[in-house]
Amino acid sequence: MSLPSVKLNETHDPELRSWVASANAEGCPFPVQNLPYGIFRRAGSDEAWRAGVAIGDRILDLQAAQAAGAFSGFDETARQAVHAAAQGATLNALMALDAPAWSALRLALSRVLRTGSAHQAELAACLVPQAGVEHALPAAIGDYTDFYTSIHHATAVGKLFRPDNPLLPNYKWVPIGYHGRASSIAVSGQQFRRPLGQTRAPDAQAPSLGPCRRLDYELEVGIFIGGGNALGESVAMAQAEDKVFGLCLLNDWSARDVQSWEYQPLGPFLSKSFASTISPWIVTLEALAPYRCAWTRAGGDPQPLPYLDSATLRETGAFDLQLEVLIQTSAMREAGQAPQRLSMSNFRDSYWSVSQLVAHHTVNGCNLRPGDFLGSGTQSGPRPDEAGSLLELSGGGKQAVVLPNGEKRLFIEDGDTIVMRAAARRDGLPLIGFGEAAGTVLPARSLPL
Amino acid sequence: MSLPSVKLNETHDPELRSWVASANAEGCPFPVQNLPYGIFRRAGSDEAWRAGVAIGDRILDLQAAQAAGAFSGFDETARQAVHAAAQGATLNALMALDAPAWSALRLALSRVLRTGSAHQAELAACLVPQAGVEHALPAAIGDYTDFYTSIHHATAVGKLFRPDNPLLPNYKWVPIGYHGRASSIAVSGQQFRRPLGQTRAPDAQAPSLGPCRRLDYELEVGIFIGGGNALGESVAMAQAEDKVFGLCLLNDWSARDVQSWEYQPLGPFLSKSFASTISPWIVTLEALAPYRCAWTRAGGDPQPLPYLDSATLRETGAFDLQLEVLIQTSAMREAGQAPQRLSMSNFRDSYWSVSQLVAHHTVNGCNLRPGDFLGSGTQSGPRPDEAGSLLELSGGGKQAVVLPNGEKRLFIEDGDTIVMRAAARRDGLPLIGFGEAAGTVLPARSLPL
Repeated sequence: MSLPSVKLNETHDPELRSWVASANAEGCPFPVQNLPYGIFRRAGSDEAWRAGVAIGDRILDLQAAQAAGAFSGFDETARQAVHAAAQGATLNALMALDAPAWSALRLALSRVLRTGSAHQAELAACLVPQAGVEHALPAAIGDYTDFYTSIHHATAVGKLFRPDNPLLPNYKWVPIGYHGRASSIAVSGQQFRRPLGQTRAPDAQAPSLGPCRRLDYELEVGIFIGGGNALGESVAMAQAEDKVFGLCLLNDWSARDVQSWEYQPLGPFLSKSFASTISPWIVTLEALAPYRCAWTRAGGDPQPLPYLDSATLRETGAFDLQLEVLIQTSAMREAGQAPQRLSMSNFRDSYWSVSQLVAHHTVNGCNLRPGDFLGSGTQSGPRPDEAGSLLELSGGGKQAVVLPNGEKRLFIEDGDTIVMRAAARRDGLPLIGFGEAAGTVLPARSLPL
Repeated sequence: MSLPSVKLNETHDPELRSWVASANAEGCPFPVQNLPYGIFRRAGSDEAWRAGVAIGDRILDLQAAQAAGAFSGFDETARQAVHAAAQGATLNALMALDAPAWSALRLALSRVLRTGSAHQAELAACLVPQAGVEHALPAAIGDYTDFYTSIHHATAVGKLFRPDNPLLPNYKWVPIGYHGRASSIAVSGQQFRRPLGQTRAPDAQAPSLGPCRRLDYELEVGIFIGGGNALGESVAMAQAEDKVFGLCLLNDWSARDVQSWEYQPLGPFLSKSFASTISPWIVTLEALAPYRCAWTRAGGDPQPLPYLDSATLRETGAFDLQLEVLIQTSAMREAGQAPQRLSMSNFRDSYWSVSQLVAHHTVNGCNLRPGDFLGSGTQSGPRPDEAGSLLELSGGGKQAVVLPNGEKRLFIEDGDTIVMRAAARRDGLPLIGFGEAAGTVLPARSLPL
């Protein structure tokens, strides 16, 4: 069954309050209308990783809540969904269910966590402070596909790589994407060494191996697949969002100098496979329903081919989701200064929307599996200051970005932490937050040999 | 520890014979010197998938053999390896061990399967005829990386895509590779529908969606990773082959018309993600040790950078492995005609060798995990008739290949079965075979919408 993205229900009621008081604070990213999923355990413990739902500044431990009998009064679909979520160290089993099951679980969670819940007493014992936990990847990611959906990013980067031909002829027709590396995706807090790679200086005869000198972030939205499709079958636009479990944030770290030397003719490889950082919480599409907006094309742009088009897409295909990237350098950290904003953009400016990515990905019969992961590609907005990478903000590494403390950046330096945040906002509605995707670059290891 | 690829031991003795009589027949692909691993069950049964070792025309059921006590007299390393192999529906647990463990298991298998074994009586009951089984993928494949190691293929295909610039400047320095799609890899016997895809005719204003018209095979060697490395660490050349569990055959089916429209600037995507077919058996590097040969560079070619070079590479870095691709059309099948050869090539002609692929893949800290899979890229030899794809054999779809029954092919047609085979041969040594990677193309499904 298809779940129209604008269909609202009692879980979206902006008047709802939770008996978890912190969830009701103005600007809290995790009100009872959000209910994102993640995997956690108490920090530094050897507890089993388990599923939880963020509510205010707490996490509801789903295994404990199920054991406490909080869901026994709900229908079979909801109980099966709780069981799937509570059973393992990843959310893959929950993702393997379908949109009605996810919806039933959300309704049950909303009811037990809102004020007046009959389960407040037993569930209060199942809350864990977010400040005291560590996270793991929310799913075992099978395949990871990274798209390239921002025409503003594609044009800006295209100018740097191919000055004479920035936007290729296929861009406005094909949701360009490539297979990414799943093994090096980690959750917020990831620390990684600056990668080594092969590069060739413009005037050099031969390339050499050395630490990346043009390390960059990419501000992206991550998309977790649920359900899926059998090999050989495709997913039509009308069903595409039923195959999406939810969204998170993604920093697709990139070694620009490695990329420019290696990427022809088969695309980025080692320039992208050393680290990718995602936020710990997956916000469901249902939570984002009130923040959908129309998907449009500029007048001169071609309309999408029929397999990438639908009435629902045009009415509510886009997401009004504000994205933000911040930096905290070593010097800032030592001085006790908070991360400072580098730029903001909005996912609604994406040239291709989520449903189109799923429909395109499967049109050839490629099978998507629960836990598969899609990246939106760098989300840059139409204005230069809305760029989602340092490559763009620094004009290809030529004009330094000046930070509030006077430090300058052309690219990422050792010790820099990059933080990404997102928020869905609308007048009269609660803020829906995503938590953070934070990652820190450590110095390169010494050269082999 | 490093296991030099030319180190031979008693398992390589060409005089060895097996008490499984069929293994001793001249030209049998599975003599007691081979001992490849696969996952199987009786055809059409609902038995659990389990690990087996090919011997002659039989499969030794490892779970049954372990239960029969055949390995109880071996050392702890061998017994742990048998246990890892016998415990599940994939070989991932065995792959997660290390080269000494794989070697200990091979030695144990060699001893119990050779003539004079004290275990013949109990193991005879653990043999299953190969003719009566079906196979599953030998491993749950995490990430799949496809390389581009044949300079002959890269040059020939480059001419078709970029006539003015066939071999890009990075080719002789970088083992070019890209992330592939793991979910659509299946074992020999795979049948799949001709993919739909977006293409644009040279004279058309706009692209359109339709069945692929330039469907092709790619003759590749598949490489299963064992052991692996932690994220942030690299694998040096000296240890690289210790991270390789074994080799198989791979047909990386390709939609050439989709590829040429979609591949700029991020590489192949839907043109490669609809199906990939591998052979059921994984031949270990140890089994291939006697068939290694020197890895060389032509005089005018640059020597590899130090991180891609080693003395062992130069002495024995290549594999003398004959590759063959055959076709059986519907008409041939109906007439009872066997598959006919399209071409042969040899893996020793690869510009980059296996150890270089592992060293390059991890130089940036990218983690390889047990069960990860690498493709060698299409293996075309130096002569035009040694091309590993129809694209090359037909000169870019311009000169039809004429089959023995008079049929012609520019590209793959519906009903065609493509069969790949491989054999390591050397005077005085037994033949080491790989089994077959066979896949069949079915008609496209009807267009959506």
